[in-house]
Amino acid sequence: MKITDLVVTPIAFRDPPLLNSVGAHEPLALRIIFQVHVEGGIVGAGECNANIPLEAIQAVREGIIGMSVTGTKAIEQRVDHILRQAAPALSQSQRLWVFSPIEVACLDALGKILNLPVSDLLGGAVRQRVEFSAYLFYKWEGHTGQEPDRWGPALDPAGIVRQAQQFVSEFGFKTIKLKGGVFPPAEESAAIRALAAALPGYPLRIDPNGAWTIATAKQVVADLHGVIEYFEDPVLTIDGMSQVSAETPIPLATNMCVVETAHIGEAFEKDAVQVVLSDHHIWGGLRRTRELAAICEALGWGVSMHSNSHLGISLAAMIHLAATIPNLDYACDTHYPWNYEDDIIRGGPMVFTEGTLPVPNGPGLGVDIDPDKLAEAHERYIEFGRTTRDDSGYRRTREPHYDPTLPRF
Amino acid sequence: MKITDLVVTPIAFRDPPLLNSVGAHEPLALRIIFQVHVEGGIVGAGECNANIPLEAIQAVREGIIGMSVTGTKAIEQRVDHILRQAAPALSQSQRLWVFSPIEVACLDALGKILNLPVSDLLGGAVRQRVEFSAYLFYKWEGHTGQEPDRWGPALDPAGIVRQAQQFVSEFGFKTIKLKGGVFPPAEESAAIRALAAALPGYPLRIDPNGAWTIATAKQVVADLHGVIEYFEDPVLTIDGMSQVSAETPIPLATNMCVVETAHIGEAFEKDAVQVVLSDHHIWGGLRRTRELAAICEALGWGVSMHSNSHLGISLAAMIHLAATIPNLDYACDTHYPWNYEDDIIRGGPMVFTEGTLPVPNGPGLGVDIDPDKLAEAHERYIEFGRTTRDDSGYRRTREPHYDPTLPRF
Repeated sequence: MKITDLVVTPIAFRDPPLLNSVGAHEPLALRIIFQVHVEGGIVGAGECNANIPLEAIQAVREGIIGMSVTGTKAIEQRVDHILRQAAPALSQSQRLWVFSPIEVACLDALGKILNLPVSDLLGGAVRQRVEFSAYLFYKWEGHTGQEPDRWGPALDPAGIVRQAQQFVSEFGFKTIKLKGGVFPPAEESAAIRALAAALPGYPLRIDPNGAWTIATAKQVVADLHGVIEYFEDPVLTIDGMSQVSAETPIPLATNMCVVETAHIGEAFEKDAVQVVLSDHHIWGGLRRTRELAAICEALGWGVSMHSNSHLGISLAAMIHLAATIPNLDYACDTHYPWNYEDDIIRGGPMVFTEGTLPVPNGPGLGVDIDPDKLAEAHERYIEFGRTTRDDSGYRRTREPHYDPTLPRF
Repeated sequence: MKITDLVVTPIAFRDPPLLNSVGAHEPLALRIIFQVHVEGGIVGAGECNANIPLEAIQAVREGIIGMSVTGTKAIEQRVDHILRQAAPALSQSQRLWVFSPIEVACLDALGKILNLPVSDLLGGAVRQRVEFSAYLFYKWEGHTGQEPDRWGPALDPAGIVRQAQQFVSEFGFKTIKLKGGVFPPAEESAAIRALAAALPGYPLRIDPNGAWTIATAKQVVADLHGVIEYFEDPVLTIDGMSQVSAETPIPLATNMCVVETAHIGEAFEKDAVQVVLSDHHIWGGLRRTRELAAICEALGWGVSMHSNSHLGISLAAMIHLAATIPNLDYACDTHYPWNYEDDIIRGGPMVFTEGTLPVPNGPGLGVDIDPDKLAEAHERYIEFGRTTRDDSGYRRTREPHYDPTLPRF
């Protein structure tokens, strides 16, 4: 089961003009597809964001050839060792970002060889479907110079409610998250209240990505008491979260202040968070993210799941992982409804039912790459000519004085 | 890969008269062997102590038949559910004790089916040999009414040094642990100093199993500063450990005050321990113990490994587990040198080289049960006629007024 090659393919796919606390999504989102080739012709797939330079990723290729896909911990150590030399600017955490899609691809290949789903390689699914939340965004009606997209504008409470209704009717979501940090908190609170009125009984979350000052956050948290399931990163830093947390019984969730092992002790001591949004891309793969869930269990923290703009390889990995975590207490985030039309998996995108997706029951991840779609998405990347996204710069094309500095409100 | 049967076989094997903080080991030690039968005729093995009533274990048999050995998390949930009804006196932690040998047996069977070692099912070995420590005990020269055993007596520093030299010469151990809590601390400290003089450079540990008062522990810890690698459970309770820990830079280790997930948060907040002795029998199997190691990594705790009197099935599981944990910072405990002569594995007991054992490279655990030896060990259990060990009662056969109440010194 030795690795014979690692093929890394950067891709681009269409993304609507979604607004967040640091800008607006550009017309194309970027990801990197990893394909681990194994003796016998099996190929496993992984996917990650495009925040790591391709050269750093390429540097690990030669070092993992010849290693067994069963030995993912040894591969993790090898990748770490290589990157310390080849890309000294990367942090320990960033070296795990590189390892993560390799681990997923190894597990995909191993599952395909053994005829077992990835979830079985992780101890087996404890649920057959994974629940996701609607991920609402403030957005422009369309990209600059393009027709309005099918979602239309969402720049006020009415627009957010309309979007929520679209998401609920099209995908069946039962939980709703609003990406905030875009407008003054009073406007975003009004949108939350409008959602609560239009869709009563739906758990609601808001995620301003650290756009609020501590004073503002305390005020908003008090104001929305009883309306919000959890507040996600209302402020930046463990200390900031700790100060807000001290004043509310509503859980604070994070994917910003607890993003690596080294943050856990301090966050626990300071009671900074009550829910961690796990993310296998960030935490170093599926096994490490299961370990994160065990850490959360030990510390009495809830577990949810974070998402960035992604396609079906990442989604399949998220589902397998989520299916194996008993204490995944919340519906998971996913950007997939915004991006699935350009998915590169064979047979068309995954389809939500009642806000859930089934655990793919084929071997490995249970999804395969369509080589034509991968080639098309890579061609899009090449034509785009860029290697990173620039949300702030794109926002400035309409708001020339836009300043992404946080906190903003 | 469905389970077709669970066969549970209690066994007994010879054990020398080892002294500890609550008595003396009786002539026979008891264990329970689990055999999980899987479609196709594969059988996986697990082993645990005999502290859980056999009826409780038998109660889970029917409920797990038909489940897949790949779905160990679902099996854990099923076992928990069944035992809540069938054995309400068992704690959540004790329910995991029952699950653990079932998980090991499932992984053994799965490995045998897939032709992969158990370590590969856990993410792969990061070391090919696992280091163990010499586990020294004060002991009588032989059991009451029997000839002296080949180890001879160890009731003073000279006897402990002689035993250490036997262990070092026979097994090549490079680290030495003394089970204490037997004699007044001054005598045990003298034994430690004698070891340091006789075997310079060998890391030394002492484990009085909570036999010392806090005041005594503080004094001994100060007295042995610079001589001891870590103190294991010098006192009982998280609060007690915390008070001792506050006065010494030497790590305190435990397998007594942090033995389940619920203890972790408090122990961390109170800085009660710096090393956790993991034990897959106690923590709910191999996967949960790997998670424990991740928790320790997150909290800055070291990881070592605990042992009870055991045979080769447990030892193989310990080795596979230990091989996959990068942050296993210390040589593992094992009682195996005291008990291997009655091991039930095929082909004879495992053989230490330089204090280490290789990761078995056959499929599954890489060891198999010898049915004749199992039958013989079961016969010994039946003849013994007892279901639990009674260290205190046995000690009282020589010291009629022996009182096992702790702390003692």
